Amino acid sequence: MLAIGGYSPLNGFMNRRDYLSVRDEMRLANGLVWSVPVVLGRAASIASTFSDGSKVALWHSGQPLAVLDLVEQYEVDPMVEARRVYGTTDAAHPGVHALFARGKVLIAGPVTVLRRQIDSRYAPYTLTPQETRAAFASRGWQTIVGFQTRNPIHRAHEYLQKCALESVDGMLLHPIVGETKEDDIPAAVRMKCYEVLLERYYPPERVVLAVNPAAMLYAGPREAIFHALIRKNYGCTHFIVGRDHAGVGNYYGTYDAQKIFDGFAPTELGITPLKFEHAFFCRACAGMASSRTCPHGDEQRVILSGTRVRAMLQAGDLPPAEFSRPEVSSVLMEAAKPILKGA
Amino acid sequence: MLAIGGYSPLNGFMNRRDYLSVRDEMRLANGLVWSVPVVLGRAASIASTFSDGSKVALWHSGQPLAVLDLVEQYEVDPMVEARRVYGTTDAAHPGVHALFARGKVLIAGPVTVLRRQIDSRYAPYTLTPQETRAAFASRGWQTIVGFQTRNPIHRAHEYLQKCALESVDGMLLHPIVGETKEDDIPAAVRMKCYEVLLERYYPPERVVLAVNPAAMLYAGPREAIFHALIRKNYGCTHFIVGRDHAGVGNYYGTYDAQKIFDGFAPTELGITPLKFEHAFFCRACAGMASSRTCPHGDEQRVILSGTRVRAMLQAGDLPPAEFSRPEVSSVLMEAAKPILKGA
Repeated sequence: MLAIGGYSPLNGFMNRRDYLSVRDEMRLANGLVWSVPVVLGRAASIASTFSDGSKVALWHSGQPLAVLDLVEQYEVDPMVEARRVYGTTDAAHPGVHALFARGKVLIAGPVTVLRRQIDSRYAPYTLTPQETRAAFASRGWQTIVGFQTRNPIHRAHEYLQKCALESVDGMLLHPIVGETKEDDIPAAVRMKCYEVLLERYYPPERVVLAVNPAAMLYAGPREAIFHALIRKNYGCTHFIVGRDHAGVGNYYGTYDAQKIFDGFAPTELGITPLKFEHAFFCRACAGMASSRTCPHGDEQRVILSGTRVRAMLQAGDLPPAEFSRPEVSSVLMEAAKPILKGA
Repeated sequence: MLAIGGYSPLNGFMNRRDYLSVRDEMRLANGLVWSVPVVLGRAASIASTFSDGSKVALWHSGQPLAVLDLVEQYEVDPMVEARRVYGTTDAAHPGVHALFARGKVLIAGPVTVLRRQIDSRYAPYTLTPQETRAAFASRGWQTIVGFQTRNPIHRAHEYLQKCALESVDGMLLHPIVGETKEDDIPAAVRMKCYEVLLERYYPPERVVLAVNPAAMLYAGPREAIFHALIRKNYGCTHFIVGRDHAGVGNYYGTYDAQKIFDGFAPTELGITPLKFEHAFFCRACAGMASSRTCPHGDEQRVILSGTRVRAMLQAGDLPPAEFSRPEVSSVLMEAAKPILKGA
């Protein structure tokens, strides 16, 4: 993300000044809005081998990926970072868990990428911000709504996307395919869901599907801002923020990730949040709706819990078409089949 | 509208300088955006009785309504005004027809209203801009979408309104109840349609119904800007602009009334246009959609012409529920019944 401009204006891992400013003020030291630290922990095993001014090779899976021009090494307090950025110091929170595992000493400096890392499974969808912006321009789009997801898209989210698409020129469907929680549906399965959904239910000339290779932080409100800034870099003008965006468990209030946007002037963010409610099919409305648009009671609404849907899929039952497009349910059902050894 | 601030910043009928600037530049002489002349024609029968500085009483239906402090009388060229404002000099155009009937001499000056004129049929809905703004504030709304209409609301427009309502706080449903074309459905019938629709299909805490007492001009693009500026005065932050907004016949291009907004900076207008396509029910989508959101063919879409709907209503057939809510169709059917003499 640093290499391709996904985290612009960052060109490397944050120094102490930016780190503290972001952690405490949600701004880089130069005043630009930025909501989560983008930092590199120094592994304990190599603690004493660097000096400022060194060039440090960054390796992944046995390959050198980038060179970091080391400008600073500094120690931080993970408890303070957890409290400020995640709103909790509970190590059961997946983002806090990763933060505690990162270590206390960070190494900072600009990064030069030797070789871009592309997951071959998503290669056709691995577009840089420059490439998505070019794709939007070639389609003549002036307004583009970005949609972040780490889930399959059921009708509720299709409806919200289409509400936005009715008044903007196009959509960047931009699922995260980096690391997610173990109980989230694997990215490869989700990509199949997105493909069948787009093929059957969206005008192809209105949607660009591309992947966000970053990992989830589950930082709720702070990550909602981060997700919006990333999509601004990819060329979006609008960004959908649902209830409990980037949340996990009960760490955040339902609307915290929407309210946090009110603390910034629109020109500071450079992207307009579209704040949506949960949606559902309502029999009395005879269509999709939310509590903002439907006056009827729960008895009219088709609402299924995630647990119930998983149980249906595992039992080989399609959830109702009012909840999920049958084509999407079929992909999920196929993926939910227990793997029979020797079969 | 002048009396209640509906045409703010105007406080009276335009002088020559403003008139020419609006006609030719779509701005008042002070540079503020304004798209149609707001002027008073001097009847030929009283041509010689005024001098500048006079106080002129304005009467309606045998009642004095207002006093105009006459500052200027000036002659204009109706042909130039027709071409610039309406894009046509065809007297068959209802707005041009009214313009030609107005006369060539206009009288200008600030207006002091003696008695506000309220149509008793719409009294509960006759809110001033101050009153609608207070209603929005008391509901805690920060973003409000305005909807202009001179028609009954079928599901297509309900869908577009609800798309907007999913991401703004509330809606001002603001039908025009002043003079409209003879073949438009009477305002009193439409108001009943709005009432039954809101009662059954909208959360009451999300909609304010009020009337716009002005007349239609059918000036297409120029009137779309005018309609938006009026709704800004009533407190709206967003305004729905459909295809051929405020159009009539084939005088305007389908998207002219949307494109005209691109000629102004958002801060100049002070209200954000939401540009929508025609909507319809699509069987393959199993929901409402438009060509922006539905990839399917016309054979899947429930599309009925106005002529067809009128014929069904007159024959006592309810149009399909995918086209119009049955409660709305019933009101229209009742109104479409031929009046039986002596019955």
